[in-house]
Amino acid sequence: MGIAADVLAGKAAAGARAITWLDDRDPRGAEVIRHIFPHTGHAHVVGITGPPGAGKSTLTDTLVAELRSRGRTVGVVAIDPSSPFTGGAILGDRVRMARHTLDPGVFIRSIGTRGAAGGLSRSTHDACLVLDAMGFDVVLVETVGVGQDEIDVVNLAHTTIIVGVPGLGDEVQAVKAGILEAGEIFVVNKADRDGYDATVSQFELMLHLREQSRPAEPWRPPLLRAVASAGEGAREIVDAIVAHRVHLDETGAFALRSGRREREQVLALLRDKLAREAIAQAGDSILAEVEARRLDPYSAVEQLAGQVR
Amino acid sequence: MGIAADVLAGKAAAGARAITWLDDRDPRGAEVIRHIFPHTGHAHVVGITGPPGAGKSTLTDTLVAELRSRGRTVGVVAIDPSSPFTGGAILGDRVRMARHTLDPGVFIRSIGTRGAAGGLSRSTHDACLVLDAMGFDVVLVETVGVGQDEIDVVNLAHTTIIVGVPGLGDEVQAVKAGILEAGEIFVVNKADRDGYDATVSQFELMLHLREQSRPAEPWRPPLLRAVASAGEGAREIVDAIVAHRVHLDETGAFALRSGRREREQVLALLRDKLAREAIAQAGDSILAEVEARRLDPYSAVEQLAGQVR
Repeated sequence: MGIAADVLAGKAAAGARAITWLDDRDPRGAEVIRHIFPHTGHAHVVGITGPPGAGKSTLTDTLVAELRSRGRTVGVVAIDPSSPFTGGAILGDRVRMARHTLDPGVFIRSIGTRGAAGGLSRSTHDACLVLDAMGFDVVLVETVGVGQDEIDVVNLAHTTIIVGVPGLGDEVQAVKAGILEAGEIFVVNKADRDGYDATVSQFELMLHLREQSRPAEPWRPPLLRAVASAGEGAREIVDAIVAHRVHLDETGAFALRSGRREREQVLALLRDKLAREAIAQAGDSILAEVEARRLDPYSAVEQLAGQVR
Repeated sequence: MGIAADVLAGKAAAGARAITWLDDRDPRGAEVIRHIFPHTGHAHVVGITGPPGAGKSTLTDTLVAELRSRGRTVGVVAIDPSSPFTGGAILGDRVRMARHTLDPGVFIRSIGTRGAAGGLSRSTHDACLVLDAMGFDVVLVETVGVGQDEIDVVNLAHTTIIVGVPGLGDEVQAVKAGILEAGEIFVVNKADRDGYDATVSQFELMLHLREQSRPAEPWRPPLLRAVASAGEGAREIVDAIVAHRVHLDETGAFALRSGRREREQVLALLRDKLAREAIAQAGDSILAEVEARRLDPYSAVEQLAGQVR
């Protein structure tokens, strides 16, 4: 298959096309995955998450530059919810990464949410597989906010960087405890702002609580400072990424996390496929009964599940 | 069934127990839904969403007070991600609503995310059904952030209130365009803060773009100001909620939205059930093949789907 071979040869246009197919659920996307899958499992997937306004895009940009200066090739998957009336221009600051667009060692791709529950993590995972097959050493996945999306994305990364920022307050920083608990590297960005010390104290307290609750955990998450807009902190963060990769390899966790990710992907695809088949076979009649409140949702599910058995 | 009858009689303890069962996927929860479902479809479900730090809890509290002063009974579903090491205490400010706890016309319930994609919206929807069956006139659903969770929650409301706040900046306010587009009532809270005018201008621009893209839309979303901590703005917001309910009834959209919500719930439950059955039948062997990269995810899904046919 031409496109799959081109993806494996690292050709950018082929990678972009494959990701579009996967995002659009074009069956050709699944065909590409079938061909490339045995050749994946090498890229180090690094998730970057934190509240809106934490400067994640700028930080990602500086991490790309730092990784490139060390000779690593980098794929970036930027999660970018698009809007019918803005055309996704809200996150037009993605152009800040324009300085990397002529570098063949960097590939940047935005992914929209498409509004479907779980759809984002499925698309993101597929995009990571394509970038992995293209041969990128590191794949940075940059999220937009702090929600279930981000937890799903975190669950597919080998290493998760949590980015905080002074001045947003407890509620913003800590709003999704599931993400904080998943983090392996913590960064306070915009460290030149007022409130830096208070934010560091919050993170220290949180890391302290986490250590107490998991005394046996071998990895101690570092807490780093950055001023990404001035390029400060990228070196230390990349050092931490590299150290965590070494840790993952030494403990066998790298392969374990990759496997868990594939397992989750199968479950997500399966849920989607089976439900669509059941609806297609049962027609809309059962759903219409529910809408009229003559049939409750749980009984409807029993009937629909019977259709595919 | 005792509990279902007690729910229909509006008994708080029975409602709380039913919601816990549903949240825990205890089969007794589905049994309650079966009994109460024909009696639901009356409550006006109002979603309240916006970025962390916008003061949504305080605003919800003032809306409860205003609705009560007009003789409406109110259920509140507060989405509250819990954490194994904090015990969910992050959102301990929920105690601000303590002033309503002795009022039998108010029922407040927190729901955790449980970490499962789509799980939150399923649990939230079930909780709304229980509160609806208990006879509450209005059910306020308060979200925590701006993510896929919130879009899912918005999709289950009849009326969605988007809360903004001065000073968070474009990126924060607009991070999820899907939510902004879904809003029927816009509120700038903490209106006594610096940056109020700039935030209002942002929202006005956004609403203007939206109107241009949907010239035929009959509902013009109002943009309201509030200082929830001082109780300011609640009257106007409740007026807008009531006006939107009238609009929904006049256009037939109330029943349409309820129906769409039930349809989505059936699909979510079905996805979950079928995937669990397929995995249970196929055992872990197919997943193990994927983890070892001997079988790709898309082929694995074909094999697993064959198991339930």
